Order: sequence, then structure tokens, then C-alpha cells
Amino acid sequence: MTKALSDVTILDFSHLLQGPFATQLLGDMGANVIKVERPGQGDLFRTMTFFNEWVGGTESPNFLAWNRNKRSIALDLKSPDARAALMRMAERADVVVQNFRPGVMKRLGYGYEDFAKINPKIIYCSGSGYGEDGPYVTRPGQDMLIQGLSGLMAATGQADGPPVPVGAGFADQIGALNMVYSILTALYYRERHGEGQEIKVNLLAGLMQHQMQEYVAVLNFGRDFERPRSGIGHPGMEAPFGAYPTADGWVTIAMSPFKKLVEVLEAPDLAAYDDPAILYGQRDEIWRAIAEHTKKYPTAALMEKMLAADIWCGEVRTHSEAAQDPQVKHMGAITSYEHPTAGNVKTIAPAVSLSKTPPTIERHAPLVGEHTREVLGEFGFSEGEIEGLITSGAAAQAQAEAA
Amino acid sequence: MTKALSDVTILDFSHLLQGPFATQLLGDMGANVIKVERPGQGDLFRTMTFFNEWVGGTESPNFLAWNRNKRSIALDLKSPDARAALMRMAERADVVVQNFRPGVMKRLGYGYEDFAKINPKIIYCSGSGYGEDGPYVTRPGQDMLIQGLSGLMAATGQADGPPVPVGAGFADQIGALNMVYSILTALYYRERHGEGQEIKVNLLAGLMQHQMQEYVAVLNFGRDFERPRSGIGHPGMEAPFGAYPTADGWVTIAMSPFKKLVEVLEAPDLAAYDDPAILYGQRDEIWRAIAEHTKKYPTAALMEKMLAADIWCGEVRTHSEAAQDPQVKHMGAITSYEHPTAGNVKTIAPAVSLSKTPPTIERHAPLVGEHTREVLGEFGFSEGEIEGLITSGAAAQAQAEAA
Repeated sequence: MTKALSDVTILDFSHLLQGPFATQLLGDMGANVIKVERPGQGDLFRTMTFFNEWVGGTESPNFLAWNRNKRSIALDLKSPDARAALMRMAERADVVVQNFRPGVMKRLGYGYEDFAKINPKIIYCSGSGYGEDGPYVTRPGQDMLIQGLSGLMAATGQADGPPVPVGAGFADQIGALNMVYSILTALYYRERHGEGQEIKVNLLAGLMQHQMQEYVAVLNFGRDFERPRSGIGHPGMEAPFGAYPTADGWVTIAMSPFKKLVEVLEAPDLAAYDDPAILYGQRDEIWRAIAEHTKKYPTAALMEKMLAADIWCGEVRTHSEAAQDPQVKHMGAITSYEHPTAGNVKTIAPAVSLSKTPPTIERHAPLVGEHTREVLGEFGFSEGEIEGLITSGAAAQAQAEAA
Repeated sequence: MTKALSDVTILDFSHLLQGPFATQLLGDMGANVIKVERPGQGDLFRTMTFFNEWVGGTESPNFLAWNRNKRSIALDLKSPDARAALMRMAERADVVVQNFRPGVMKRLGYGYEDFAKINPKIIYCSGSGYGEDGPYVTRPGQDMLIQGLSGLMAATGQADGPPVPVGAGFADQIGALNMVYSILTALYYRERHGEGQEIKVNLLAGLMQHQMQEYVAVLNFGRDFERPRSGIGHPGMEAPFGAYPTADGWVTIAMSPFKKLVEVLEAPDLAAYDDPAILYGQRDEIWRAIAEHTKKYPTAALMEKMLAADIWCGEVRTHSEAAQDPQVKHMGAITSYEHPTAGNVKTIAPAVSLSKTPPTIERHAPLVGEHTREVLGEFGFSEGEIEGLITSGAAAQAQAEAA
């Protein structure tokens, strides 16, 4: 099958989430992603998990999630021989991706200029928390910290409780998509004009851009959002927008003519609230009044009534419930791949559809150095050169492949 | 200044958030984005706002946020003359973007096949809530509803309170970035292989992909996340990960050696918790114990102590506080543009940096039909043809330009 990016080779020095999700998205489109890891431990995400459990007893769900469609080469970045090997590989590479703290790659001899000297057409993309200079340059750039700094947390949750971080990574994934946006833009430009360039992406700017409509409102109106004192779903929105209890769960109700909702709930006591100023000003009181009605119905019955009246609504599902959702099943959103040590790994399929070049899963998330010999061979290293690198400790080949 | 996408012309039929954010990102990189709007009201987002206020008294912050770097042409899609004009424009266009409900564009004669007949190299990208077929095809695909269906809301907030939607759009912005990812991939492929194609992006699959590590954990471990009963910041994380009160606000504390935190807080009573199983199993009790200590310090003093010990932490800021943050100022993340009726509009600058082709803001968000004459002229329509379209009502030119 034709893959859109099959002629794009990426040297991927990234770890944790931002860089790996970005290169996985490019790998899903067929890019030749070569993940450069330190021998032994490899990507730090391999050591992190949820619930203190491991897939197949040994593998991190976090790592498995963001590293399919890549091959791993284990190289000691501090070894001059490894550096020489990487620079030789860079002659044939199109893109370099990295998300170490600012300055680290340059100090090790892997900065943009180092690569551009070898290959002026290289596209070099760095990810950081807050950019590569300025007062926060030495601060750790972790996802939840950026949620707090960017205004997102202060706008989420209820006024009487703490500001609430999202129950999933957020800044990192947006950062990954901004890397993809920038790298693909630069690849297109290179096709047309023959030039490579340096790209810098940071999590804070990305999460601010994500909240552009909230910022435009706050900056131009000169007032901040205030978290509601109820299940209203956005600090700038009026009732009914929010999550409501049912007899056996929760539903969401978004913007819909309020009159219609009053009819569907058979709740004439709510009719008096049907005024834009009241729906905003008394939103918490209205949320509680609506909730008294919604909790009389089981979710399925309430959803049926509301959908019949074209009210914008939905079920609130857990992840395992979502996996059983009829539309999720119809879309084929859940899939799996075989992994040499973890066995069958359930995961999420590529999210987008391209008629001529569909994204696919062709490779499992690799073991550290699973493809060291194979990759070096493809880049023209002789058997003897490969053995020399491995013997000296500059490179390492995973045990698993030898088995 | 060189712009990476200056030779890419986009006919943009999209409205509200997903499509407009996508085409704005492409416009920031120099694409020639032509926003096709209905005469009169235009994009529905022009009628929606926060706080019941309007920028400059008339303009929607939501619309202003997502529509810079575009020109607007007002055309009545149902008019055969307008359709003929659009198909003539399509001969010279590279990309079509739309996010009407599934089937609408096709019924009106603007489906992928209609454009491909005129221009086989066209790239046609549709956005929807849940894909274009399946059991939810007629359901409204609004952002918060997708948060509920995808498992995100159930994983956010506290166990004793309602599931919490994020205090910002989420699914739509991710959908926009997935459009950009797909369109740029298809443009690159077209450069290499000469073929256009059809792209389909939906919000539900995108938000599931965003939560890939949570899904990999849940699907492979066979257990769902449970919301904490405290300010712990992720349902799968152990203490201290979360938001904590200070004497005058809130701070975030992410993963750090617990021992170091005990020392910094001068809180020997916390030392007994320093065990991975306890930090997860008793996380809510530990959160409360830590909070008793953090609330003794003003935010600035606590941050200084924690950063000195390299604890991963950050301030929790509102949007207007974030605008005053020293790093945000250093990055130049807040900028503005002049708008013909709203005056000076403060907004967020492009989030990414490309050394040779930096994204920039070249145009204000347009009035409905502000560029109808100009755009038709550029596409080779004669003065007489343009007048004919306007006189018949197939097209409209905004008053403002005439002034």
C-alpha cells in the first residue's frame, strides 16, 4: 500500500510524550522513524506506568502507546564513535526530532548547526516546555505544570474546589501535534524551495494557542473567567451547558433551545429561567434545578427523549465503556498489534482517514536497540563496523532479536 | 518574508471551530485561505460569545480568535451561479475544507467527487463529530459531548463531584490539528506523486487518540481509572501529583522524589508515606496532609523553595495573570492586530518557530464578504461577471470596504 511519507527518514532522539507522539503520527503515515535510545534503559517512559502494573508483566502502557511504527537503535550519545555513526546517518536523513531540556543536545554535539553542517537540507525540530531561553529556561516543563501556568486549570472545575487538571496529558499531546504541523510545513517548503530549517516548539505557547478564544475574550474584555459552583461545563457558558446526573450515570447537555429542554424534561418549573441573562447569571441554580429532573431518568431513556428532540447531548462514558460504544466499534477505533514480549497489545487506531494513503500500524513499539544491526546495515555500515560499535559499547543490540 | 505555504490555495467552507482553526494554522504559514461564507450572517461563530459581550461592541471573540489570515467571500451555496463560480475557482485551488454535518456538502453539489471532476489533484478534507456513517451519524458532534463520550470527562475531577469537562474547547482543537496533519501529509504526497485525495477527520477518534496512553492502560489492564477524592491531578497518578493551596493561591506539584518534597516543606510527618504503593493507595489522605503544609506559604515563597530543590512545580494562573507571566512576555505570546470595526484586537501569536519561514499574522479576521470582489477578480472573473453575481444575490460584498 502507498504510504504518504515513505521517503521521509527521521532520526528521533525524543523521549517521554511530546516527541514520541509526533514521530508516531509521522510513522503512521509511513515515515521511516529511527528511534535513538540510550543502551540499557532507553526512553524514560519505558519505566513509567499507571496502577503500578505492566503490559505483559514488563512493558509500559505509556511507552507502548506512543512508539509504534518505529525502529529502535541503541547508541551511547556521549561516545565519539556513536556520534560519528549518527552524523554519517544524518547525511541520508530528512528530519531530526528531540525534546531534551534546552541546550543538552547542543552540548553533546547534536545541535542544529552540527547536523546542518553535514546535511544543509535537514529539518531539525526541538520541543521544550517554555522555549529555549527566558526566565523559565531551567524550569522543568511537565504537562500538568503547563496546564496550571496557561490558565487552563484555573478555568476547570468548580469555584469551591481546587483548580482541576485534565485527566489525561494535554500540553504534551498538543505539543506533539504542533511538531507535526511544523515538520510537515517545513517538508513541503523543502520540496518547493530545497531548503531545510530549524523548528522550535514549546508546550506553553501551544497550550495558549489552544485556548485562543478564551484568551481573546479575557484580553479584550479585561475580565477573567470564573469557575461555576455546579456542573456547568465551561466557566464562560450559561446553563444548561454541562454534565447532569441520571438515575444510573451522567449525561452531557450542550447548547440547545432551553424551551425544548423544558418540554423534554416535562419540567414547567424550569420555564421561568428561559432568558439569556438569567441562564448565565443564575447558571448554578439552574444546573441544580435541571439535575433534579434528569436524575429521575435512566441514561438510556433520557438520551432517547433528548435525541428525538434534537437536543445536543451525549452519554458520559469511562474508557472501557467507550471501547464498547457502538460508534467506536463501527469506526474500528480500537485495534491491536503483536509485541515480542508483551504479546497482543490493544491500542487506538490512527484517527484520520486518507483515501489514497491511509495511515496504518506496521510495527510494534520496539525494544531498546531491537533494530540496531538492521538500521546500521541499511545506512551502509559494514558487518565489521557494526560489530566494532557494539563491542566498544557505542551501540547495543537488544537480546530479544538474537533469540 | 518567505512563507512556507504561499503557493497553497484553500477554499474554506468551514465554520465554528474545528475547520477554522485548521485553516488559520495553514494561513499563519502563508496559505491563501479563502473563507466561503453565506451572505449576511456568515460563519455561525460570529453570533456566539462569552459573558454576553462583544469586542469593539460587535465582534465575537470566538470568531476573531480562529479567522485571522483569511479573506472572506460571501456566496449563496444554493445558487447555481455561485456553484458555477466556486467550481471555476476550484480549478486553481489546492485544498477544500468543510465541516458541515455529514452529507450536507454532497447534497448541495460540493462533495469530493464534484471537486475531483473539475480538479483531480484537489485535496478535500471533511470534519465531523463521529465520522460520516454509523449509528451516531445524525447526532450533533459538539466538543463537550465528545469529551463525555471519549472517557475524558469521567477521568477528570473528583469522585464525589460530577465528571468535569475541560474549561476550554478540546475535541475541536484536536480535530483542527488532525486536519492540519492530514492536509499537510496529503500536500507532501501530492508534491511527490501528483495525486490529490479525500481526507476525513472526526472529533471522537481524535480525542481517543489524544488519550492513547490512558486507553492502552485501561484496555490491557482491564480496569478503568477512578477519579481521586482530592486535588490529585490525574486518576492514574500517585501523590503528590496535583494542585495544592497556598496562603494566597494554588501551585502544581508533579512527579519529584517525595523525600525532597518532605525536606522542602520541612514536614517530617509526611516522611512515613514515602513508598510507591502508599503514595498511590493513600493518595487522597497524602494530598490533604501536603496541603496543610503548602497553605502556610505564599505562592512566591513556596515556588522559590521548591524550584531551588528542582521539584517539578508551577504557579496556577488565570488567563489574565498568564498574560503577565514573565516567560509569556519574554516569548511574545500575546500580540494584536487591527480590525476594521473592532479596533485593536489582542490575541495569541503563532505558537511555533520556523527559522526560515516563520508564521506571522498578515490579515485581520475578515468581515463577511469583505473580499468578494477582490478574490473573484484574482480568480479571473471580469468586472461584469462580478457585478452579475452580486446583483443576482449569488454573491455579496461587505459594506465596510465600500466605505
